[in-house]
Amino acid sequence: MPLVVTGTIGIDTIETPFDKREEILGGSCVYFAAAASFFTPVRLVAAAGEDFHDDYQAILRGFDTIDVAGLELRTGSKTFAWGGKYFDDWNQRETLFTELGVLGEHPPKIPEQYADSRFVFLANSHPSVQREMLKALPERVFSVADTMNFWIESARDELGKLMEEIDGLIINDEEAHLLTGVRNPITAAKKIIAEMGPMFVVVKKGAHGCVLVHDEGVAVLPAFPVEEVVDPTGAGDSFAGGMMGYLAASHAKDMNVSLASIQQALAHGTIIASFAIESFSLDRLASLTKEEVAKRYEYFQEIAKV
Amino acid sequence: MPLVVTGTIGIDTIETPFDKREEILGGSCVYFAAAASFFTPVRLVAAAGEDFHDDYQAILRGFDTIDVAGLELRTGSKTFAWGGKYFDDWNQRETLFTELGVLGEHPPKIPEQYADSRFVFLANSHPSVQREMLKALPERVFSVADTMNFWIESARDELGKLMEEIDGLIINDEEAHLLTGVRNPITAAKKIIAEMGPMFVVVKKGAHGCVLVHDEGVAVLPAFPVEEVVDPTGAGDSFAGGMMGYLAASHAKDMNVSLASIQQALAHGTIIASFAIESFSLDRLASLTKEEVAKRYEYFQEIAKV
Repeated sequence: MPLVVTGTIGIDTIETPFDKREEILGGSCVYFAAAASFFTPVRLVAAAGEDFHDDYQAILRGFDTIDVAGLELRTGSKTFAWGGKYFDDWNQRETLFTELGVLGEHPPKIPEQYADSRFVFLANSHPSVQREMLKALPERVFSVADTMNFWIESARDELGKLMEEIDGLIINDEEAHLLTGVRNPITAAKKIIAEMGPMFVVVKKGAHGCVLVHDEGVAVLPAFPVEEVVDPTGAGDSFAGGMMGYLAASHAKDMNVSLASIQQALAHGTIIASFAIESFSLDRLASLTKEEVAKRYEYFQEIAKV
Repeated sequence: MPLVVTGTIGIDTIETPFDKREEILGGSCVYFAAAASFFTPVRLVAAAGEDFHDDYQAILRGFDTIDVAGLELRTGSKTFAWGGKYFDDWNQRETLFTELGVLGEHPPKIPEQYADSRFVFLANSHPSVQREMLKALPERVFSVADTMNFWIESARDELGKLMEEIDGLIINDEEAHLLTGVRNPITAAKKIIAEMGPMFVVVKKGAHGCVLVHDEGVAVLPAFPVEEVVDPTGAGDSFAGGMMGYLAASHAKDMNVSLASIQQALAHGTIIASFAIESFSLDRLASLTKEEVAKRYEYFQEIAKV
């Protein structure tokens, strides 16, 4: 089942407690698409500037199930650039710089051939841009959005309108607290479902796994234990990509996405994210095989059995 | 298989963001014994003062599989008293007061009829007291200890000696970091196993579940999602009690405690702890039935499936 993702392409400069990389490929849409591509073809919609040179594009094209027809390369513009620094415990990061570039311009256009997309993921961007994307995808049957603190604080009304139109929301525990005023992630997610529109909410807890609250019930998942974290950038987007990719692949015909189905998809998202953080940028995902994914998932089932 | 626990009996005064209780029954040994009693008979070794009146004793005696022959009531002494305050996010607590009472005196004596105990839990106390207890239990085949920041900092050598003699250590993530200098809980636990003696380490992450590292491999468990936390005091001891009680019951004849066996025991510890925090003191555990435990475990298996 075609899965479309819209979000950012970024050129990242990242400092970790152990290493540093300058101007590497990043962005929510990029991590998501790479992660989802292990399960299903992905259609990418995003804009980049003329500094998004061939080397970056080649990495994306290396994932042969990513359709880049929706990649808009804008002459005279700059790609979104982000600099971030991680500290000892990985749980906090500092933004060193943000250069909006194309993100400050009009949103990218969705190619006509994407119009039949049924599964939609709106990676983090302005809620009104996310809504505009949704409108351009009239055949959608299952749409999920990510957001962030910044939009919860600065674009609350637009975010509210978006939430009325999506099936699922993926946020982290701090964002769930900010959005609802409720600290318990399960209670916060229930409030979002009861009052704001989505049928399910996934609350990510970083290195501590996630909780899923759905119309039909709840699920709790530990993270996959990674000892050698190299760069956690893109972990959330890889997680979402693995989840949505698995769902789109599992629901090629039956569009009825159940709690159990999402629960299993989250475990696959967890696995892809665990690989993504083992390297900077897409390095690990670029070399990853479906067999490695299947093997780690099997191992995860064993070590996470209760 | 007889399980013996030594640790503290406490008279607690607790403030939460929502409520307050004065002079209620608490202590590591008490929570542990109540939790373990759902699976196996428990032998308690602990001291209390003459202020440990009938009402407190009656609560303990209400758990009919707790053997209180090892409860030492000392005339002229005072029971250990602790006052604590929890904040909005439950993750931090402040100690308001500590009155050592009997804990400042000689340790309790292990009754002769306990000498054949095979499963031993050393709840948090001075490592040299924990070692002394171990020595008095020559028939032990499986011993596990808890400890805390205070002893890691102030009694490092004694703790080191204790660790050479136990099979398992239960600590929280901060303690694992303090003990090893390593922040990743899996890596820290591996270091403890490689360098300090235990065959396995359980690292508790509070509301985020736990990880188990064992000679044979690892396991990861989410916490059971509790929305209405009333008082988290004793959660760790209830968790340990459920785990050890389940292990002692499962290994009535076969003393070979495997990774898979501990993994399943941790899930049962998780369930008992989830009940314990639904009330102050032992209130919820006192009314809890084995059927409720079995039902919640079955539900946990469903929602934690990956």
